Amino acid sequence: MSAVLVVNSGSSSFKYQLIDMDTETELASGLVERIGEPVGHSRHNAGPTKADRSERDLPIVDHTAGFAVMIEAFSQHGPQLSDASLIAVGHRVVQGGNRFFEPTEITHLVELNIEDLSEIAPLHNPGAVQGIRAARASFPNVPHVAVFDTAFHQTLPPAAYTYAIDKDLATRYRVRKYGFHGTSHKFVSEAVATFLDRPLADLKTIVLHLGNGASACAVDGGRSIDTSMGMTPLQGLVMGTRSGDIDPAVIFHLRRRAGMNTAELDDLLNRRGGMLALAGNGDMRDVEDASIAGDPVAQAALDVYFHRLKGYVGSYYAQLGGADVIVFTAGVGENSPIVRAGSLAGLEGMGIEIDPVRNEAKSRKSRVISTDASKVTVLVIPTNEELEIARQTLATINRTHPSN
Amino acid sequence: MSAVLVVNSGSSSFKYQLIDMDTETELASGLVERIGEPVGHSRHNAGPTKADRSERDLPIVDHTAGFAVMIEAFSQHGPQLSDASLIAVGHRVVQGGNRFFEPTEITHLVELNIEDLSEIAPLHNPGAVQGIRAARASFPNVPHVAVFDTAFHQTLPPAAYTYAIDKDLATRYRVRKYGFHGTSHKFVSEAVATFLDRPLADLKTIVLHLGNGASACAVDGGRSIDTSMGMTPLQGLVMGTRSGDIDPAVIFHLRRRAGMNTAELDDLLNRRGGMLALAGNGDMRDVEDASIAGDPVAQAALDVYFHRLKGYVGSYYAQLGGADVIVFTAGVGENSPIVRAGSLAGLEGMGIEIDPVRNEAKSRKSRVISTDASKVTVLVIPTNEELEIARQTLATINRTHPSN
Ligand SMILES: Nc1ncnc2c1ncn2[C@@H]1O[C@H](COP(=O)(O)OP(=O)(O)O)[C@@H](O)[C@H]1O
Ligand SMILES: Nc1ncnc2c1ncn2[C@@H]1O[C@H](COP(=O)(O)OP(=O)(O)O)[C@@H](O)[C@H]1O
Repeated sequence: MSAVLVVNSGSSSFKYQLIDMDTETELASGLVERIGEPVGHSRHNAGPTKADRSERDLPIVDHTAGFAVMIEAFSQHGPQLSDASLIAVGHRVVQGGNRFFEPTEITHLVELNIEDLSEIAPLHNPGAVQGIRAARASFPNVPHVAVFDTAFHQTLPPAAYTYAIDKDLATRYRVRKYGFHGTSHKFVSEAVATFLDRPLADLKTIVLHLGNGASACAVDGGRSIDTSMGMTPLQGLVMGTRSGDIDPAVIFHLRRRAGMNTAELDDLLNRRGGMLALAGNGDMRDVEDASIAGDPVAQAALDVYFHRLKGYVGSYYAQLGGADVIVFTAGVGENSPIVRAGSLAGLEGMGIEIDPVRNEAKSRKSRVISTDASKVTVLVIPTNEELEIARQTLATINRTHPSN
Repeated sequence: MSAVLVVNSGSSSFKYQLIDMDTETELASGLVERIGEPVGHSRHNAGPTKADRSERDLPIVDHTAGFAVMIEAFSQHGPQLSDASLIAVGHRVVQGGNRFFEPTEITHLVELNIEDLSEIAPLHNPGAVQGIRAARASFPNVPHVAVFDTAFHQTLPPAAYTYAIDKDLATRYRVRKYGFHGTSHKFVSEAVATFLDRPLADLKTIVLHLGNGASACAVDGGRSIDTSMGMTPLQGLVMGTRSGDIDPAVIFHLRRRAGMNTAELDDLLNRRGGMLALAGNGDMRDVEDASIAGDPVAQAALDVYFHRLKGYVGSYYAQLGGADVIVFTAGVGENSPIVRAGSLAGLEGMGIEIDPVRNEAKSRKSRVISTDASKVTVLVIPTNEELEIARQTLATINRTHPSN
């Protein structure tokens, strides 16, 4: 057996998953949170059942202490990391800028570069660097690999990633569309080819990753050619708490008329926007429940969500010159027949036809939800970002440490 | 004969056109500019030839003085306003908010309401009010009518006009998508029905108004259901000097990292953006000439312009559930085969097929530029906002002054 530990680190928490690479199955997973607070918390799942779960409340002073808590949980509750033959640690990093276009084995210099990219990802990269430093100190004998959310979008043409603003300023402050959720868009668009048993190179696919964060991606023969998130994860679709697209002049207006400062405006769009702003709740399940119960405010919020999503489907249909596949993934995409039906309603003229029975059927598996007559195949495919990070980590160390 | 004077007023200038409503032809036109500067300027075209043109340089202290200059030009160079039987003055007003959904005869109260809407259109409405006041003082015996750029978009559904931000704040500060260029979108979408001799109610049309400012509009049976400009004319397409869509977080980033203030950021996106930023020139003719001469920077700028436009075509194709017509209008749309071909390239799979010979043919007339086989009919139709304002002005006074 050989296993990869996948780590997704924020500034006060990290999640982990241990994956058996021979079978590509999860061996264990967990979470360490409230790092730096008076009382921290950890949860470890040594296996798939509730009985396998153990939790602790204790002060966790920093990420290094957090990894000690994790290592103790492995040794106490299993699986034993030595038995699991841990061969590498894969780290999720949100922003790779235009420096990291591939999964990259982490050195001190790579750490510094990821840290430097905090300038354009102040909410994400600092936490990733803290996690990487602590994990490398805790597991000094295995290679660590950084896998970037932006990397899959390296193939965007300049026409798609360039904003129409002063070019010197854009270069100096690294302003361009980077796109995010790349690990998921890559995993899912490749899974489409496998699922349909068709060559990836032949497929034009629109991936709709709809979770708390949400983004659409136009994938042409396995290459991302456009995506809805921008320089940051704010642009694009309506999300749980993010506004997505808005007239940028709204910011100037609210600055001048409402006297709001940058922190307040950032908060308004990034943390108090989206479904939270429109329906009073950022959790799609709750919004749908309210709408089903007859709440017109929740229904109106859903209509905004659908409208935005439908526009991006059309946009990417045009950018691809027609689509073979539209695929839904992530929490909302995998679980909400209401969102899937609502966002593709009225697109029969584009050869997009959902089968209501297939759409409503509950399943955890990859599946077709379009009619047999639908020109465009509509799929639901569960994403697995951790597995994709583990795969890329393994591929990277196989390249850089061919002796392994 | 009965004539309508159409006035388009800014804070330091106004344009005018006198239109014979029996024949719907222009009788005269002109421009008064640099109002309030040490030396102002006026130009009057008493007819269609160069010999009919007269110009003056003189101090013009305010809009009222400007109208005096105009009236003098009419009386000196003709046509005589009395002979022309001036029956009304129509004023272009950019922002009608959600107060003015129709052309409206101007009273003191209407003036105050237009002035109040300056809060959301600080660059446009104050100049319009100045022009209206001066014109009413200069022509006190005819009715004046305000025609709003936003009015045609009154039919947008909430799903299209709602931004996903705090609802109370949005209501209080009147933040929503209004859309602009409505007079042109209305004129052109109705002209499509006439040109094709088909009922307006049956047509799904995407109007691409591409001038210095640019916007796209999805028109379903004569009703605007989506449009690319937003609360202000900044959102949407790449324009001459405006960025159009951008990740709103770019503003926060540049505020924090580059220390730019609101005025500088507004300037960056509204006056130093668009083709000016990307190609060093906001005039599309010059950008095209540079690209034809082999300048890769100009070509790259065009590619960004095309990409954005193509995305909106796809988006509105989806919002309409398929389109019957795509129509190009305004300076760029009417005159640039390069832009028309570039923005619709690769859309054959959507039934959109431009005929290169028809597209390249020079003409000032409404014309088809798609192939006979193209499922979607692609047209070029010259816009005429002044005529549309005159028509709406006439229709309004016929309703309110039926004795006329
Ligand atoms: N059955 C369901 N119906 C609708 N939404 C669901 C359902 N199950 C989960 N969701 C939604 O999925 C979202 C979380 O998606 P997820 O992909 O886990 O998010 P993240 O972006 O944080 O990874 C939440 O808004 C949640 O309400
Ligand atoms: N032959 C042409 N080819 C390309 N662009 C043209 C051509 N003629 C005019 N234009 C462009 O049209 C734009 C002005 O359009 P117009 O509709 O007059 O603008 P406005 O929005 O100010 O009303 C300018 O960018 C100009 O370069």
